[in-house]
Amino acid sequence: MSPTVDPVLIALDWGTSSFRAFLMGQGATVLDQRGSAEGITNLPRPGAEGFVDVFAAQCGAWLARWPGLPVVAGGMVGSAQGWREAPYAECPADLSGLARAAVEVEAPGARILIAPGVLSAPAYGAPDVIRGEEIQVAGALQAHPALAARARFLMPGTHSKWVSLEAGRITGFATYMTGELFAVLCRHSLLGRLMPEGEQAAPEAAAEAFALGLRMARESGPGDLAHQLFATRTLGLTKRLPPAALADFLSGLLIGHEVVSGLAHTGAAEAGLPLALIGEGTLCRRYAAVLESLGAPPALLLGNTAPAGLFQFAIAAGLVRPAPAANTAEEAAP
Amino acid sequence: MSPTVDPVLIALDWGTSSFRAFLMGQGATVLDQRGSAEGITNLPRPGAEGFVDVFAAQCGAWLARWPGLPVVAGGMVGSAQGWREAPYAECPADLSGLARAAVEVEAPGARILIAPGVLSAPAYGAPDVIRGEEIQVAGALQAHPALAARARFLMPGTHSKWVSLEAGRITGFATYMTGELFAVLCRHSLLGRLMPEGEQAAPEAAAEAFALGLRMARESGPGDLAHQLFATRTLGLTKRLPPAALADFLSGLLIGHEVVSGLAHTGAAEAGLPLALIGEGTLCRRYAAVLESLGAPPALLLGNTAPAGLFQFAIAAGLVRPAPAANTAEEAAP
Repeated sequence: MSPTVDPVLIALDWGTSSFRAFLMGQGATVLDQRGSAEGITNLPRPGAEGFVDVFAAQCGAWLARWPGLPVVAGGMVGSAQGWREAPYAECPADLSGLARAAVEVEAPGARILIAPGVLSAPAYGAPDVIRGEEIQVAGALQAHPALAARARFLMPGTHSKWVSLEAGRITGFATYMTGELFAVLCRHSLLGRLMPEGEQAAPEAAAEAFALGLRMARESGPGDLAHQLFATRTLGLTKRLPPAALADFLSGLLIGHEVVSGLAHTGAAEAGLPLALIGEGTLCRRYAAVLESLGAPPALLLGNTAPAGLFQFAIAAGLVRPAPAANTAEEAAP
Repeated sequence: MSPTVDPVLIALDWGTSSFRAFLMGQGATVLDQRGSAEGITNLPRPGAEGFVDVFAAQCGAWLARWPGLPVVAGGMVGSAQGWREAPYAECPADLSGLARAAVEVEAPGARILIAPGVLSAPAYGAPDVIRGEEIQVAGALQAHPALAARARFLMPGTHSKWVSLEAGRITGFATYMTGELFAVLCRHSLLGRLMPEGEQAAPEAAAEAFALGLRMARESGPGDLAHQLFATRTLGLTKRLPPAALADFLSGLLIGHEVVSGLAHTGAAEAGLPLALIGEGTLCRRYAAVLESLGAPPALLLGNTAPAGLFQFAIAAGLVRPAPAANTAEEAAP
C-alpha cells in the first residue's frame, strides 16, 4: 500500500510474542502496517542488535522513503527484557507523565522513543504493573473522549488488566492471570489429562460447560478456586461433561472468577460508569456476555486501540502536532 | 527384620508415585516394611505384569516364609490407571461399604483385595473423589476411636483432601489442588521466572513472605486468587521481597486460600469439633499453624495412618480377625 498523504509517525506495538508497526498520518490514521511474530522473546539474535534487525527489516523501506520520521514504541520492548528499560511511571498516570518517563534508543536512520509502563504501588497491599495497556487506554480515549472523565477498561488475555480511569488519569489497575492459568492447567496439570487434544465440543455442549463453570464462580466464596478447579477432572470422571467440553468448563470457571473479583474491586458494575473492553473480538464478546450475566451494564467493545494510543503518546512527547489544528488550517486554505 | 510374632496380613499402600508394603501382626502392629518409588505411573513394565513384578519383588520373601497371608491394597492401584479399577463407593461411606465394593487381583501365591475410593456426587454442585484418603481416615479412627462420632480430617499435599466424618461414616469431602497449583506455577508460569533455582530464603525472610501471602488470602474476596497470584511477580519486580522468598509468598497465599475455604465449607473451626491433620510432619505443622492463625482450634497431628487403615479394611473384609478378642483370650489363658 502506498499512502497518498504524507505520514507523520511510525508507531511500534512491540510485545512479548508479536511485533506490529504502523505508518501513521495526521489525525492518527493508519496508512500502512507491518507485523511479525518477532516479539521480544523471539528475536533473530539476542541483545540490542536483535531489536535493530527487526526494526530495520520491517520499517527500513518507510524510513528510506520518508527520512527523519519520528518513531515511538510501547509494550514489553520497554521492559527489563526489552530493547531498553523504561522504568515504570507511578500511578496516577497520564500521557504527559508517560512522555516524561520515556527513554530513547537509536537505530540506523531513526531515534525511537519508548513509552514506560505504569506502576501502582499502594503502601498497603501488593503492587501491580501494566506495560502496553496504558497505551491502549490512551487510544480508547482518542476514539471516545467522553470516557476520559471516568471509566473502567478491561483488556482480557493471558494477563487480563482491569484499569480505572478518573479525570483523565489512570488511578489504579489489577492484573488477573486468567489466560496463563488456563494454559498452564490444560498443558501441565492433571486437569489436562482428560481433555482430548485438538478436539472441540459441539457449540451447545461447549456453551453449557462454560455456563456451568461460570455458575460455580458466581456462587464461590473466598479461597474456593483451588477446590473448584478439581471439578474439571471430576465432571469428566463422572461423565457429567463430555471430555471435549472440559476446557470450556475451566474457561467459564476462570473467567467467571476474574469477573466476579474485578467487578467487586473496580466498581465497574455501577450504573452510569462506562466500561470498555479492548482487544480481540471473540474474547471480548465472551467477556462481555460474562459481564452482563454478572450484573454489569453493557460494555463498549473496542478493537485494537494501540496505534491511536501510540499517536497520542507521540503528541504528548512533542513528536507530532495534534490533528485538529493542522486539519483546520488545511481546510481553511483557499 | 525378622518378626518374632506371626504376621496376619500384608498391606499395600500403592499410590501414584510410591509403593509401600507393610507386614502386619495382630493388633495392626507393623512387623516389617518395604518401599520404593514404583508408584502406578512408574512401573518396570506396563499393564498388570508391571504390578505383579513390583509386588513379587517386594513381598515375595514374606509370602515364601508365610504362605497364604492375606493381602490388601489401597490408593491409586485401584484407579482406572491402576492394577484393576475398583469403582468408587458412594458417600456416605464406611469400612463395610468399602469392603463390599472392593475388587480382587491375583499374583503368584497371593490374592490381593483392592479397596475402592469414595465418590461424593451431590445432585447439585460438582462431584468429588478420594482414593487412599478413606483408608487413612480409617487408620486415624483406629488410633483415636473418639473421632468416629464426629470429626474433620485434613490431608495436605499435591491434592489436599478435607474429609467430614459423622457417626462413623464419611459424609463429604473436598479436594484442593494446592500442591499441584504451587508446582505448576513455579515450574511452568511467569511466576517462576524470578525465583532462583535451588536457592532458599533465610528462615526469617521465608516466614515473613509466607505470612504476607497468608494475610492476603485472609483478606481476599471471591475470585481474587488469579489477581493475587500476580503479586508473586510484582513483589519481586519491586524488590519488596527477595527472589528466594517468592516461592514462600506463593505457598502462603495458596495454603491460606485453601484453609480459608476449607474452614468455611466444613465448619472445622467450630469449637469442640475435632480436627486431625494426617500426613508428613513438616507440611502438617505448617498447615496447623495456618489453621490456628485463621481461628481453628488446635489440630491433632497424626503421621502415616495408612497401615492401620488397611488393617481395619482387612478386618471389615473378613480377612483378619479383630485384635482385642484374640489378645484377651491369650491373656486369660493360664
